[in-house]
Amino acid sequence: MIRVSILGTGNVAMHLRQLFLELKDVEVVQIVGRNTKILQSLEERTAITSNFEDILDADIFIIAVNDDAIAKVSQFLKDKKGLVVHTSGSVSMDTLSQCKRYGVFYPVQTFSKHRKVDFKSVPICVEAQDDRDVLLLETLANKVSDAVYQVNSKQRKALHLGAVFVNNFTNHLFHIGQQICEENELPTAILQPLIQETSAKITNLSPYDAQTGPARRGDFKTIEDHLEQLNGSEFQDVYATMSASIEKLYR
Amino acid sequence: MIRVSILGTGNVAMHLRQLFLELKDVEVVQIVGRNTKILQSLEERTAITSNFEDILDADIFIIAVNDDAIAKVSQFLKDKKGLVVHTSGSVSMDTLSQCKRYGVFYPVQTFSKHRKVDFKSVPICVEAQDDRDVLLLETLANKVSDAVYQVNSKQRKALHLGAVFVNNFTNHLFHIGQQICEENELPTAILQPLIQETSAKITNLSPYDAQTGPARRGDFKTIEDHLEQLNGSEFQDVYATMSASIEKLYR
Repeated sequence: MIRVSILGTGNVAMHLRQLFLELKDVEVVQIVGRNTKILQSLEERTAITSNFEDILDADIFIIAVNDDAIAKVSQFLKDKKGLVVHTSGSVSMDTLSQCKRYGVFYPVQTFSKHRKVDFKSVPICVEAQDDRDVLLLETLANKVSDAVYQVNSKQRKALHLGAVFVNNFTNHLFHIGQQICEENELPTAILQPLIQETSAKITNLSPYDAQTGPARRGDFKTIEDHLEQLNGSEFQDVYATMSASIEKLYR
Repeated sequence: MIRVSILGTGNVAMHLRQLFLELKDVEVVQIVGRNTKILQSLEERTAITSNFEDILDADIFIIAVNDDAIAKVSQFLKDKKGLVVHTSGSVSMDTLSQCKRYGVFYPVQTFSKHRKVDFKSVPICVEAQDDRDVLLLETLANKVSDAVYQVNSKQRKALHLGAVFVNNFTNHLFHIGQQICEENELPTAILQPLIQETSAKITNLSPYDAQTGPARRGDFKTIEDHLEQLNGSEFQDVYATMSASIEKLYR
């Protein structure tokens, strides 16, 4: 039995709580957070507190709060014997160094309130100061995911950077596509099948080989046409930079 | 019965041929192309020719060749009574103006040789000089797709531009994510679930609302960290431009 407490009431915290509650050999000791409204809704199945001085003992404390609140929350755990981890891709593990035992439990996924994620396929990257703690985190991670990786801090930071490219920036491109549709009185749904196929395609083809389009072909006439269409648009820079980067790669 | 001929042997041509062959009320009259090897593989089920002077009569001629070959191929059809269309998002309809009747049949999707696409969900944008020809194209398009749109030239060009953002540029971001993984000895599969969820998410959430990440939060410390990690990388520009564009949107 692994006794786990979760600090935080955001999307990651709530997804982890739900997963752990479904497991027989994991006990959710307590949910700790400031949002009393959310806490009350959890009370039926889990012990809760909004008082950070009232944290019970546990084997693992998972701090799933905003990056810039991690250090502050960890202060309340510095006398605990249990392992303290955060769930962030970008925050240094040493942010927790005032705790006796510390590490990272980073799920490489984007979580939304109203979307259920198939956690079994979500990669979880674990890291800890002590080798035995790495093992403990791997044991916990393996209970919820089929894709557990031990990574070092440098790798985790690289992974987070990669995630910004493939998630944050990609989503912004989707927004731009939608804007272009709206400005031209086209239904935004019209680009959806293309968006879905773009992602599906790279499950059996490398993005390098899957690349198409004017920049890949070196079709400067179309690129100039497109830049002209984007005259006065805030997205002209994005077009120019992305096209230049693709051209350079295939030149 | 609509009698259709296809000019070209690339991915779009081959996908359309396959679809039309499955329909009872469409007859594939002929496949016309230069690649005799591919043509021979089609011979069993369709009339073929590599001689562009030997094109049989048909109700609709679909020119599915590279953008810059469309004008040249259309020369061989200028005396035909049938409707001549191309399948390109970016080429002007007037490129076909030497033909008696002309239009556009543009499927908004990316086609690969070895991937089967569910054509029923692929948007097809039709356009023609003559209203009756628009109807004819709609009739044909409705037989293979549940998403048929009549668009004008300006809209089609905008759509093609949008497709470059959500398909070509997105794929390039996937490549960058993969590169970052490889450089840090991380398995490239580690970003796959995130990539798939990024697309899936916007089927029930607008990209504007789905946006997360340092640029959205105005977290300049993380952005600076990332830019530093990308020092000397060819992808630093992409990071800076994309972040600036997101910041501007949510400022």
